[in-house]
This record gives sequence, structure tokens and C-alpha cells, in this order.
Amino acid sequence: MEQQRHQMQAEMQGEYDPITEHAEAVCIDSAEDEASSFRTRSLKRSASAMTHNETSQTAMIGVRRCHIESLDYEIPDNDIFNENWKAKTGSEALQFLISKWTMACLVGILLGFVAFMVNACVENISGVKLLSTLNFLEQDRYVVAALVLGGGNILLVLLSVCLCACLAPEASGSGIPEVKAYLNGTNAPNILSMKTLIVKVLGSIAAVSGGLYLGKEAPFVHSGACIASLLCQGGSERFNLTWKWQRVLSHDRLRRDLVTCGAAAGIAVAFRAPLGGVIFALEELASWWRSELLWLVLFTTACITVVRQVINNLCEGGKCGIFGNGGLIVFDMSEVSTNMRLMALIPALLLGIVGGILGSLFTYLSGKIMKFYSNWHRKNECVGKVLQALLVSAITSFCAFGLPWLASCKPCPSGAECPSSLPTGIYKRFTCSSGYYNDLAGLMFSTNDDVIRSLLNNNTNNEFQYSSLLIFLVSTFILTLITYGLAVPSGLFLPVIIIGATYGRLTGKFMKSYIGFDNIDEGLFAYMGAASFLGGSMRIAVSICVILLELTNNLLMLPWTMLVLLISKTVGDLFNVGVYDQIVIMKELPFLEEKPEPYMKHLTTEDVCSCPVVSLSAIERVSAIVEVLAKTNHNGFPVLETTPASPYPTLNGLILRSHLLILLREKELFFQDACDPVCYDTKSGKIDITKLMSGKGPTMSDIRLTAEEEGMFIDLRPFTNTSPYTVKEDMSLAKAFSLFRQLGLRHLCVIPRKGGPCPVVGILTRHDFMPEYILGLYPDLKISKWRRIRIRLSLFKFVRKWCC
Amino acid sequence: MEQQRHQMQAEMQGEYDPITEHAEAVCIDSAEDEASSFRTRSLKRSASAMTHNETSQTAMIGVRRCHIESLDYEIPDNDIFNENWKAKTGSEALQFLISKWTMACLVGILLGFVAFMVNACVENISGVKLLSTLNFLEQDRYVVAALVLGGGNILLVLLSVCLCACLAPEASGSGIPEVKAYLNGTNAPNILSMKTLIVKVLGSIAAVSGGLYLGKEAPFVHSGACIASLLCQGGSERFNLTWKWQRVLSHDRLRRDLVTCGAAAGIAVAFRAPLGGVIFALEELASWWRSELLWLVLFTTACITVVRQVINNLCEGGKCGIFGNGGLIVFDMSEVSTNMRLMALIPALLLGIVGGILGSLFTYLSGKIMKFYSNWHRKNECVGKVLQALLVSAITSFCAFGLPWLASCKPCPSGAECPSSLPTGIYKRFTCSSGYYNDLAGLMFSTNDDVIRSLLNNNTNNEFQYSSLLIFLVSTFILTLITYGLAVPSGLFLPVIIIGATYGRLTGKFMKSYIGFDNIDEGLFAYMGAASFLGGSMRIAVSICVILLELTNNLLMLPWTMLVLLISKTVGDLFNVGVYDQIVIMKELPFLEEKPEPYMKHLTTEDVCSCPVVSLSAIERVSAIVEVLAKTNHNGFPVLETTPASPYPTLNGLILRSHLLILLREKELFFQDACDPVCYDTKSGKIDITKLMSGKGPTMSDIRLTAEEEGMFIDLRPFTNTSPYTVKEDMSLAKAFSLFRQLGLRHLCVIPRKGGPCPVVGILTRHDFMPEYILGLYPDLKISKWRRIRIRLSLFKFVRKWCC
Repeated sequence: MEQQRHQMQAEMQGEYDPITEHAEAVCIDSAEDEASSFRTRSLKRSASAMTHNETSQTAMIGVRRCHIESLDYEIPDNDIFNENWKAKTGSEALQFLISKWTMACLVGILLGFVAFMVNACVENISGVKLLSTLNFLEQDRYVVAALVLGGGNILLVLLSVCLCACLAPEASGSGIPEVKAYLNGTNAPNILSMKTLIVKVLGSIAAVSGGLYLGKEAPFVHSGACIASLLCQGGSERFNLTWKWQRVLSHDRLRRDLVTCGAAAGIAVAFRAPLGGVIFALEELASWWRSELLWLVLFTTACITVVRQVINNLCEGGKCGIFGNGGLIVFDMSEVSTNMRLMALIPALLLGIVGGILGSLFTYLSGKIMKFYSNWHRKNECVGKVLQALLVSAITSFCAFGLPWLASCKPCPSGAECPSSLPTGIYKRFTCSSGYYNDLAGLMFSTNDDVIRSLLNNNTNNEFQYSSLLIFLVSTFILTLITYGLAVPSGLFLPVIIIGATYGRLTGKFMKSYIGFDNIDEGLFAYMGAASFLGGSMRIAVSICVILLELTNNLLMLPWTMLVLLISKTVGDLFNVGVYDQIVIMKELPFLEEKPEPYMKHLTTEDVCSCPVVSLSAIERVSAIVEVLAKTNHNGFPVLETTPASPYPTLNGLILRSHLLILLREKELFFQDACDPVCYDTKSGKIDITKLMSGKGPTMSDIRLTAEEEGMFIDLRPFTNTSPYTVKEDMSLAKAFSLFRQLGLRHLCVIPRKGGPCPVVGILTRHDFMPEYILGLYPDLKISKWRRIRIRLSLFKFVRKWCC
Repeated sequence: MEQQRHQMQAEMQGEYDPITEHAEAVCIDSAEDEASSFRTRSLKRSASAMTHNETSQTAMIGVRRCHIESLDYEIPDNDIFNENWKAKTGSEALQFLISKWTMACLVGILLGFVAFMVNACVENISGVKLLSTLNFLEQDRYVVAALVLGGGNILLVLLSVCLCACLAPEASGSGIPEVKAYLNGTNAPNILSMKTLIVKVLGSIAAVSGGLYLGKEAPFVHSGACIASLLCQGGSERFNLTWKWQRVLSHDRLRRDLVTCGAAAGIAVAFRAPLGGVIFALEELASWWRSELLWLVLFTTACITVVRQVINNLCEGGKCGIFGNGGLIVFDMSEVSTNMRLMALIPALLLGIVGGILGSLFTYLSGKIMKFYSNWHRKNECVGKVLQALLVSAITSFCAFGLPWLASCKPCPSGAECPSSLPTGIYKRFTCSSGYYNDLAGLMFSTNDDVIRSLLNNNTNNEFQYSSLLIFLVSTFILTLITYGLAVPSGLFLPVIIIGATYGRLTGKFMKSYIGFDNIDEGLFAYMGAASFLGGSMRIAVSICVILLELTNNLLMLPWTMLVLLISKTVGDLFNVGVYDQIVIMKELPFLEEKPEPYMKHLTTEDVCSCPVVSLSAIERVSAIVEVLAKTNHNGFPVLETTPASPYPTLNGLILRSHLLILLREKELFFQDACDPVCYDTKSGKIDITKLMSGKGPTMSDIRLTAEEEGMFIDLRPFTNTSPYTVKEDMSLAKAFSLFRQLGLRHLCVIPRKGGPCPVVGILTRHDFMPEYILGLYPDLKISKWRRIRIRLSLFKFVRKWCC
């Protein structure tokens, strides 16, 4: 490794180095020779690393490659901030608290209305579409029915894909991976903007009504996150006039907390599962959480539940069109007989294994298809997306209309409304004669919710035929796969539940007839199947348990649900990662896992850290700052100080790019003489620096300086974070990773082991911890992938040894 | 502050300094004058700090003051460990994984059996006791009945208190605060030992059967934690022979994870709430958690649920005595009509506020009573404890037997078995004539479970009279208060639910008759009351929601439960901390909160750090090590290294006391000449140091050295953690706290800001972050308490301004 690194350094020796020019300006009073020689070496070395590291600073957002920034959860520790903090009185802190909770409540209320709108629109549009198709079918006008269904679907999908492709590519997909990455500290442009929100909501309505096999649940999560983020920005800007204190505290941390609330509220409103939302947010989405956050999230989901209850009360009696059957429980299964004893372990085990295998297969195939789609996009972006979506929509409509012809008609059961007159009914006549129904049409000609309801339904053991369920399973599996990569807002929850419930019901039907599990309802098998496929594809545990509990209101199934989830997740993990994690990897979002990768123990911080260390002096010339800002894209700069006592400069702290830009705008802070420490104290007192630091900071293009101003100096010390976290250059990367990840840092200074001419040898950022970057530097470490396979192989060996 | 500290330092100048003697041995090659003068100064200064800090290194465990040690969750980063880590093959890692999951499963199974034993014993013993008392009453033999009840109770309580007072004082109390502190990284002796487990189980059976107002739920949590900890120790020691790899990995972290599992399993088995257990462990108990831990905990609770199901199946039909009615749901309320609309906001709000006020009152009073008891204990430990318990038992029996005489008889409702023949029935005849029942006797002469069941029961709106409920409320409140501080294993959950349900039912009765809430069942009011008192006293949110949901199987109440909990917690927080947190504070357990205290932002690490920095050289004389170990009680020592290049020594790393003791025992590692680096490489290769480092290490008394051996040297470098986390001396204490807390450290090195003669100026440990220590050093900071009150006052002002 060492050899390789030195070789790389040597290769870079000839390159142009923009920073060397002002290196003199930095170490003014220090032992100049040594310092500048060090800095040159350091710059050279890291220039090579930087080239490598560029790759991990972009990611796919929607279908475009964007520049990614890290968020900074460290509270700055500079003089200005501290003074302001000390000045904060109790009542200001209280006002902050109240406004935080008000915002959390507002997130719940707003998302509640958005969700109502989406639900009402989807149910009405698709209801009208399905009803008219069925009417034409009953009149034997097959061509017209096909045209109505196919045409309606294609128009709706066209609307959705045009919105996503042209207006906001960030809104396509489920949004959960992006929200997860945001909560991990990754900021991608536009991911939580107003435009994204609007397109997400409208696109989701159109795509779901258009009959595609996708859910509206994950888009709620993304919408909730958008609403929270917008409230945070808008709120802080709007209240700037009245509430001074909020400026300092409108920090990335508060926004992170509220975005967590919004995402949790999304799940809460999608599944009418307030607890499930809280636990999903904490288990799957949030990377950092505290018990205070737990209360805030719980409050948001309580608010949204109350809003939902109010809207449902208002909508009673058909006032909102077909939208209706309010209640808290979506798929009520509480009446299902659960006389399941220990014997139920057998189907739980079986379905768990099947779910794990199918779930990982689904993840694998969806990855392949998404790659195929994105290659297509690269060649022909806008047209490609639209064509894909239209093609998939056409295939979906063809399946919906064509496949039910394959099923034979079944006689209506006695006592049920058959064929159903409402679009929500299970018994669709389709082309059957009176008194008969087509079971496959019942599955194909319904909204996702109704399909799940009829699959989970109890006491309907002979409602579906083997052939219909099998056709439905295969077609849904394929359609979901080809739909998920499209450039439309698409959730996975409902399609996954449908697939799982279908094979669960198939298994149940088989076991009841051939193995003799007579006392278990087919609906319960469907339920366990749904749990197993959720666990196998998403690899989420506790929140899925809670969500399923709240969806079905069947507490007695809980132990079996837990077992099924544990088994399917374990089986799935043997093959690949979960579907959301796969998307995070595919989109190259710089996600910091909880634990360091094993190979990080073999590396030291020095081996990977970002260089060149472009540092500034405590009292720096304006022109030097401008140059550094213009020529690098770093966001943090170490500030070095020279004292007469020591021969070498010492580290004063770290200053952020955003703060430097503000300082350059405030020309009152400039002064003529580099050796006049008095000038700062008087000057800075005049300016309310915290006010300037809030809101959107200036960019480089906003800075206009005269030649005279450029020759002046700024005292950076009061604006410097004087105690950044530091690690030594020989600390193992795994330990540095833990520090970086646990504290949610953006910059981590690497200091030399033994002291020496320069107090900072490098800066670690999020990108330096990314596997692709590290493995790019040290390809020798890549064997770890094979090792994982070896571990899997040894598991099989172990099991075999243990069994025989 | 500065002044005060300097003054303290000056005061200590005259003291004897044991370490100065070998100061020469440390800085052999370095600029001797400067180094040794530094070390002297450093020692002097910190000697004063240490005296202060001694106070926070002990805590009340049970009722005794014990020495507290911190746990170390940092993975050591020394050569030996790294080599061993690299040598670990895939199959060894897999074996570790499998044994971890097996242990988690074992924890569930063992606790399942323990819980079954406790439940069966309690139900049978108290059932027999109550039944015979009632029989004597029916025969009008009142004195015999009173003697049976009172005598039985006193005997049982005597057994319980004798076990706790004489054998294992650690087993008294609920144990939840201790488990919480353990999971925070605090190790108290015997808190998770076999003796504690046995006394906890037996004492809990006796105390609960003895009719005291306490629950057996919290003791399950403590028992689960004990079982997990014992398995961890036993497992690793037993398997030493076969599984080499486990030695290195039998780390504090694994034990912490399994103890979390055990505690979660305790809640899961107590309330038959597997999900509630998981979420309680993660919300209330665990200080650190990862998604991997979530799966492990879920697995344990799934195991225990299956075990419970099996045992219940085996016990069907009275095979286990009175123990029975298995099922998953303890208090089934699913049939309760919940036609609660928005109007239900009013009782939710009201009960939330009442719960918050009563809960904080309860916390306040229980704190006072516990202090009173512990003063009594100090004077007369064993006898005092026994007398207290007997007194409380006598009062409880008197109330149980005496108070029902105050209630008037009510006619039996039609259609119910009245008076009940089983001890679990609600309708107790007591002294009434046939066809009548005494409602207060029904509450007083039942186990806690039955009381809750009858209070939450629906469609029994007129079963209880105002006067009976009021008498029961007051007596239960007082009895619970005086019981909770006794030296018996005692849980709070059930008494709290009883109190809450009683005032909830009272409120419901009142609102139904006078305000006209006719469509809400009294049982629902009782349920909301229970939720409010749980929230108001314990301040736990999500897990209480889940536990109540699983206890009652009534999903439709969830939104109102959430609101009630949020309100009662908010109201309660205005007055004081939750009941568990209060016990943590009272017992002086060194608990690290999630967030730094506000005043920590005003201090730097230098202001509080532990001194003297007793450091060692990289190649150190054996006698010096022995002296340092004997004369200090520090657990980590910085190892300094001197290089010819630098005038000052540099920090090589940190070595632990336990590792030093092992080195002293292994005399093969000693060598004669201080300047012979070869000798280490050959020597250490011979010894499997990781084997030595596992298991119980030697103590100072195990070390026997000859004079010749004491003159030899040891090379400490391969055993040193070469990259300890460091902070600069001018970093704000709040930031250092975040680092320390988030990473679960035991030692944090404070390095000088500007370089200089000594590379370490101090070491921060858990005790340096304790409020009592910091506020002892800087009493000026204590205003923060008043500030909190000021914030509260300003809240009232704010609300008033906002309302008017």
C-alpha cells in the first residue's frame, strides 16, 4: 500500500498547484522554510487523492447526476456563537421549544391534508375508470372497454412521467432512499424542494390511478419530508423579523429532526399506523436519534391521526365521492380465527424461507432492471423515460384486460353480493354470465387496497382458483419489477404486500388441501406471506411488525409475524442487501453505515485523508481568502496561528466556507494592518454577525472587492470553530469512522502524531470514508467481498457438519 | 472560577506526592528538568481534583454504598489485539455470530421458565391465602380470617425482606434504574450476579404473594438482565476450551447487548408484549443501540413468547394450580365500544393533566419517603429494613381487611356469578348477605392483575360506588408510596396502572353522571387514566403505547392513548424528572445523559479533567509500574515515549490497569536492559497474550515479585492502545461530553493546545462529567437550577399572554 501511495504522489509531482502561490501568506512568522516545504508536499500528495475522491461527491438524484454536499451537525464553537448562546434567555429558549413543537404539529396537519387529497383523487379517478370499463364489459362492448381502460391508463401515466421527467426528476422513485440519505447527513439539491413536493403529489396521483403496480405510501414519506424541510426554511425566514433567537438555532439539526417527523407522519398517514410511523422512522430512516426526538415524532403522528379522523368524519356518507371507509384499520383481520398453536411454526418457517429467497431475488432483479433503464436514460433522457413508462403502462393494461380471459368463471357463493356493483367489490362479473364471477378479474380490476383486502379476507377459502392466483402472482411480480425503475413516483409497500399475500394464499391453499392444515384460514397464510415478502425485500423488523399489527388489528398473529420476519430477513441477508440499501448504493449516495467496514481496521487516517490541506492564517489577507475560495471546492479550512513561543504554527481551529463568504461580504471587518488585534474587538461589536449567518449565505459571485480591499486583512479568530474534533494520523480508520459517524461531523482534522512543522496533516470528510473511494485507493482490500462469500460458504459447511 | 482553581492548587502544594519518586524513571532520555518539573506540577494540581472526584465514584446499590466502575466500550487498538483480529477467519466470525444468537435465544427460554415459576407461585400462594380468608369470612369467623390474612402476609413479607436485607441488598427495589445505569456503562458489584437473581426471584414471589402493593414486572426486567449477564460470563468461561475466538470478543459490548435482550425479554414476558419489550428496552433502558441490536432483541422476545405459549398450552385445564388463563392478551378490551369522536379530546386532555400532576406528585413523595427510609437504614440497617417491611405489611393487611367494612353492600347484578366462587372473581360477598356483594372487598381481596381487569372491564358502569373507588384510590396511592422504598423486590408498573385506572374510572363516573358523556364506557376512562398515570410518573412514550396496545388489544384507543401520554408527560416534566430518573439521581449512579448539561458549554476540558496524570514510559521499570498500581486507583495510564528527534516526550497511547497487571504476572516479558528493543519481539511471540487477557485478570495481591525482577524492564508498547481518542485542553466540555458519551468511552485523553513538555495534561473519565462533581468545583454554575424554574415561570407567563 505504502509503495502504491508514494508512486501516486510521485506521479502528481508535475501538476500545477494553485495553492502554492499564497503559501507564504499563511506561515508569515513561522519557520518559513520548513512550513512551506511541508505544505508543498502535502498539497502534492493530496491532489492525487482528490482526483479519486471527486467520484464520490456526486450521486444519482432521480435520474440525474448531482453534486452532493454533507450536512454539518456539529454545533460551531466559535466566540460569536458562544456569546450569542450565553445571551439566550430562558424565555427565548422556551419560544424556540414552542415553535419547534408547533412546526411538528403543522407538518402533521399539512401532510394530513395532502394525503387526503391524494387518496380521494386516486380512489375517485381509478374508481370511475374501472367502473366504466366494467360497464362496457357487461354490455359486451369489449373493444370500447379495452380502449377506455388502456387509454385512461396511458394518459394518466403520460401525465405522471412528463411531470417527473421534465419538471422534477428528483420526485421519481420512492424517495425513501433519498430521505434516508438526507437523514444520514447528505444534502442533494432539490431533493426536498417545493417543486419536488408538487410533482411528487400530482405524479403519484396520476401514476397510481393509471393502474401501474406501485403504491402511494412511499411518496407520502417523501412528501412529509419535503413539507417539514420547507416549513423549516420558510419558518425561519418568515420569523426572522420577530424572533431573533431562531436565527442561530435554525441549524441542520433542527431540520433533520423535523424531516424525521415528516417522514414518520408519511408512514402514519399511509397505513393509518401512528406507532408504525414512529418506529419506521427510527428504525429505517433516522441515523441519529434521541429520546427527545421520539416524543416529537410521536406528537407529529398523533396530530396527523387526529387530522385523518376529522377528515374521515367530514367525508362520511359519500361526501368525498368514492373515498371512504375511514376507520383506523385498513385491512381488518381481527375476526380471523387464530387457533394457531405450535403447528403454525411450520408454515411460518416455510413462508419465511420462501419470502427471504423471493425477496432477495426481487431485489437482485430490480437492481438489474434499474441499471438497464438508467443506461437507456443516458442515451436518450426525456424521450426514453416517457417511452419506458408508456410501454410499461401498455403492458399493465394488456395484462389487466387480457389475463382475466384465461380464468374460468366460478359460480357465485351464496349470501354475497355477486357480482358486486361497487368498484370495491371482490366479485367481478367480467365476461361471465349472470350468477358467475371471474376471480382473476376481481384481482386485476381493483385498486391495490381492494386487492389486499380480498386476499387477506378470511372465510373465503375457495374464492380463488390455483390457476388464477398463479397467473396473478407471476404477472404482479414481473409488472412490479418493471414498474419500480420508471421515472414516476412509486412506492413498493403495496405491490410487495400483494405479491406476498398472493403466494401466501397459494401456499395456504396447497397446505390445506394436501397436508391437512385445515384449522388455519387462507387469509392468515396470505398475511404471513405478506410479512415474509416485506421482510425478505426490505429487511425491516420491528416497524413492519407494528405496521402490520396496526393494519390488520390482529394482535394474536404477532408472535408468528415476528418469526416470519426474522427468518425471511436472515435468509435474504445471505444473498444480498435490502431493496432500499441497494438503491442507496446504486445511486451512489454517500451513506455512512452504522459500523465501519472491516478493512478500515487495517488503514490509518493518514492513508485516506483529503489533501491538500489548504489552510489560512489567523489574520489573513483578503486576497488570499478569495483565492482559496475560488480555486478549491473545500468547505472547511484549518486556521493556523503563529506564536513567538513556538517555532511552528499551531492550529487555531476550523473555519467554514460559508462563514468566510459572509466575512468577505462584510467589508467593515477588514482592516489595514496585520498586527493590530484591537481593531477586531471594536469592529465586530458593531455587526450582528449571527443575523448575517442565518438565511442563505452569499456565493462567490456575490463578492465584489476593490483592489484596495483585497490588500486588507481579516481577523478570522472570532469566527473560527476553535475546537474541532481531531484524530491523530496513525489512528485506525475504523476508530476515526466511529467518531465521525457517531457525532455527525462534516470535517475531522487529522493532526500529526509527533508534533512538527504543521499542526494539521489532512482533513477527513464523508467522502473519505466511502468504500468506493478507499477501495479505489487500495484495491488490495477488495478481497473482503470474496471473504463475505467465503463466510457464507462456511455457514453451509457449518450447518452440514452440525446436521450430520 | 480560574481564581478558585488556582487557590485550590496552591492549597495542595504541601502534600505528599507518591509519584514524584519515580518521575525520573519515566522521562529517561528527555529533557529531564523540564519534564519532571511539569509532572510534579501536574500531580499537585490534580490531587485536589481527585479528592473532589472520589465522591462520585460510589453509589447506592440496593441500600449499600458501593464502589462503581465504568465499562469500556472502546475496542482496544493495540498491536496484540490487531494481530489477533487479523488472524480471525471467516468461520470463527460465523461461530461467534451463531453463539451470540444462541445465547439470545437461551436468555429468552430461561427467563420464560423463571417467569412461569414466579407467576404460578404467586397466583397459587395468594389464591390459597385469599380463598381461605374469604371462606372464614363467609362462616362469620372474622378474627380467624384476619389472622390468616395478616399472618400470612407478614410471614411472606418477612421471608422476602430477610432474603433481601441479609443475602443480596442489590435485589431490592425495582432494578430498572440499575439496569439502565449498567447499560449506560456503569458497573456496580453484584448487581447482575447469581445471588441477586435468586433473591430477586424468591423475594419477588414472597412480596407479591404477601399482598404488598407492588408488581412483579420490573423484577422480571432485572432477572432477565441477570440471566443474560450470567450466560455471558459462564458461556465464555465454559467454552474457553473449545472456542478460542470467543476470548477476544467476550467484550463489554457483547454483554451490554445481551443484557439489553434480557431486560426486553423481562417486559415481554411480564406484559405478554413482545413488541412492547423491544421498544421499552430501546426507549428507556439502552443508551446505545444499533439496528443489529434491534434484531437480536426482537429475536429474544420472539423466543420468550414461544416459550410462554408452550407453557400455557401445557398448563391448560388447571394442571398448574390456579395459574392459568394463558392467551397473549392480559386485559382484553377489544370488545369495548370505542365510538369516541373528537369529543374524546376533552377527557383525554383532562386525564392527561391530572395524570401529569399526580404523577409528579407521586415521584416527589416517593423520593421523600425513600430518603426517609434510607436515613433509617443508615442508623440500623438490618433490623430497620425488616421492621419497616413488617410495619408496611401490617398496614396493608389492615387496610385490606378493615376498609371493606366501610363500603355498603350492593345487590348482585343479574346474569353474573355473584358472589364469585373463584378467587379471581370480582363479586366478593365479604360480610354481605347472600345476593349482595361488597365492591371494595372485590378490589382489596384480589391480586393486582384481577383488580386491573375489573377496573378496565367494560359494560360494568355501575359496579363500583363513588365512595369505594375514592377509598381505594387514596389507600392504594399511600400504600404504593410507602411500599416502593422497602428492601424487597418491587415493581411499580402494576400499582401505577391500578391508581391510574381508579381515578380514571372515578372521573368517568363523574363525567357520565354530571356532564353527559354517556357514550363512553367507564372502562375506557379507566384505561385512559392508567395511561395518564404511567406517562406522568414514568415519562415513557412509545413503549407505553405499545405495551398498553398489547395488554388490551384495543387498537382504536391508540390515538387517544398517544395524546394522553404526551399531555401527562409534558405536564409532569414541568415539575420534576420521571420516577426512574429520580432513583438514578438518588442512588448517585453516575449516569451519562444523552445531551450535555447547559453549563458544560461554559467550561473547557482543562477545567475539570482528572489529575494527576500518572504516566508511564514506553519501556518502564517493573518497580515503577508496581508502585503506580499500588498507590493510585486509576484504570488507565498514558504511555509516553521519548525520541531523540524531539525535546519532549510524545504520547504513545493509553494502557489499562488490567493489562498492566497481566504483564506483571507474565514474568517472561521482563528483560534486563532498557535499550534492547529486540527482546520484546522474541519474547511476546512465545506467549498467547490474548488468552491471558480473557477471563478474570489478576489483582494486585496476586503479584509476587522478587527484588531482582523489580529491577527489570517491560516494553509496554505492544500492549498500549496506540490511538486513544483525544481532545484539546481548550475544547468546550460540552463537545468533549458528546464525544465521550456517543462513543461509550472510559478514558479520554486531554492534550495540550500548543504542544509543550508534556503530551497529556489530563484524563477525563465518566466521573469528571458528573454534575455533582463539576458543580462542586464551580458552585457558581448552580444557578442553572433556578434558571429551569425561571423557564417554567416564563412558560406560564407565555401561556397567559397567549391566552389573554
